[in-house]
Amino acid sequence: MLEVVRSIEEMQEKASAVRAAGKQVGAVPTMGALHEGHLSLITLCRRHADVVVTTLFVNPTQFGVGEDFDRYPRDLERDTRRAAEAGTDFLFVPGRAMMYPAEYVTYVNVEKLTDGLEGRSRPGHFRGVTTVLAKLFHIVQPHVAVFGQKDAQQVAVIRRMVRDLNFDVRVVIAPIVREPDGLAMSSRNVFLTEQQRAEAPVLYRSLRVAEDLIRGGERRSAVLIERMREMITARSSGAIDYISIADEENLEELPAISEGSGVLVSLAVLFGTTRLIDNIVVRS
Amino acid sequence: MLEVVRSIEEMQEKASAVRAAGKQVGAVPTMGALHEGHLSLITLCRRHADVVVTTLFVNPTQFGVGEDFDRYPRDLERDTRRAAEAGTDFLFVPGRAMMYPAEYVTYVNVEKLTDGLEGRSRPGHFRGVTTVLAKLFHIVQPHVAVFGQKDAQQVAVIRRMVRDLNFDVRVVIAPIVREPDGLAMSSRNVFLTEQQRAEAPVLYRSLRVAEDLIRGGERRSAVLIERMREMITARSSGAIDYISIADEENLEELPAISEGSGVLVSLAVLFGTTRLIDNIVVRS
Repeated sequence: MLEVVRSIEEMQEKASAVRAAGKQVGAVPTMGALHEGHLSLITLCRRHADVVVTTLFVNPTQFGVGEDFDRYPRDLERDTRRAAEAGTDFLFVPGRAMMYPAEYVTYVNVEKLTDGLEGRSRPGHFRGVTTVLAKLFHIVQPHVAVFGQKDAQQVAVIRRMVRDLNFDVRVVIAPIVREPDGLAMSSRNVFLTEQQRAEAPVLYRSLRVAEDLIRGGERRSAVLIERMREMITARSSGAIDYISIADEENLEELPAISEGSGVLVSLAVLFGTTRLIDNIVVRS
Repeated sequence: MLEVVRSIEEMQEKASAVRAAGKQVGAVPTMGALHEGHLSLITLCRRHADVVVTTLFVNPTQFGVGEDFDRYPRDLERDTRRAAEAGTDFLFVPGRAMMYPAEYVTYVNVEKLTDGLEGRSRPGHFRGVTTVLAKLFHIVQPHVAVFGQKDAQQVAVIRRMVRDLNFDVRVVIAPIVREPDGLAMSSRNVFLTEQQRAEAPVLYRSLRVAEDLIRGGERRSAVLIERMREMITARSSGAIDYISIADEENLEELPAISEGSGVLVSLAVLFGTTRLIDNIVVRS
């Protein structure tokens, strides 16, 4: 049975009690609007933990001015049902004033890794992400936390934060869940028009083309990026924010692909005002 | 019996084991060079916890360029003996490369409260303090952590960090321990010449004069500060960095003292290259 917890102190007490009983606590931080991707995180978390805490908080500090904080989809009743079905034990739903009380002034910042990609287009975004995650880790006290590969830069940033600040938390990453036509699941897909929705799968197809080219021996990032750019531009109305080929861990742009390390091919494309991201990791 | 622990993983395992056994873990973070002030923190910590972890790490990120990181006193053998005598169970002594590995990029920052006083004279100092404390809290996993009132701004900053980031740690503050002539204990007192050492007690005497004036009804901070300035200048060779009268919690400067709230009277004075701080809290 899922239990909804709304108070920070209550969540800390419950988490401490679970830990004291010798059980493993798992956390799945979300902003709600749960889709199949989120549910796969909860399912994966169950495999690693005895008790699964799904957190649901649309975190204002990770949205920039003019971003979609206000229109971000919210449906607590539906989210509660879906979280329960996927195997959540506790759904932690804190209020905004509780998370950011008056005179709130403390922030966690991961430098360098947050400069490029999403960080360039969304200044302050990752500072909001790492700050709220530090808070949620202290509240939920998980042994293991599960995140989706969909937010590839976030994955690298969280891994670094956990390493640097010595959080005693194991980070587990779940693969991207896709629609049958390849579009990555996203809470923002609901904003797409019918036309945009029909075009959007070109993002994943372009990533697959890049992967095939790399596996075929292409090493020049500029060639790969140009090929993806042409494909997306020719087959959709999407406006490309970035296409990047970078080191999977430190996110440094790679002019040429070298053997051995994980290569993160990632992109962000605007369909109207809806910004979609996707990525693929190629280990060559 | 005191046990020295040098590895982060080992410390986390030991702390987890103590917690799993239902015992309370207490932490006393220090930079070593233990004096009576530190020992009082360890003694106080024993009253609040079953197991006391004293940490000893001269944290490079809280020293500014040109500050005394290199000459900061270090004597592990003596510190180990004193920590044991005061009741330490584990002495955690991590190496620098372990605490700040290659490509370290994550920092915790408490804004606003760190702008004035020590923060103005020592830019970056508190970012180093809060970052290393976040790390130590994650490594030692204390239920309670003890700090000294000597570093009054640090106390306010740590309290705010713990509140804002929801650390499940109780912060306990120990009063300042003083030499018989009133000089606050400090690891930096060893740097004073005989002459400077003889003059330095004027700092505390000036704080006591301010306290007496406040209790006598003086409400104008400028008058209090001027009186302290005259006293220190007339009776010592010390160069005043600041004398401040501020709100104890948010550290905002108070032009006039109002009834009810805690007033932090604090100062920093340079004797040659040795910078001494002291403070007194007056509740009127």
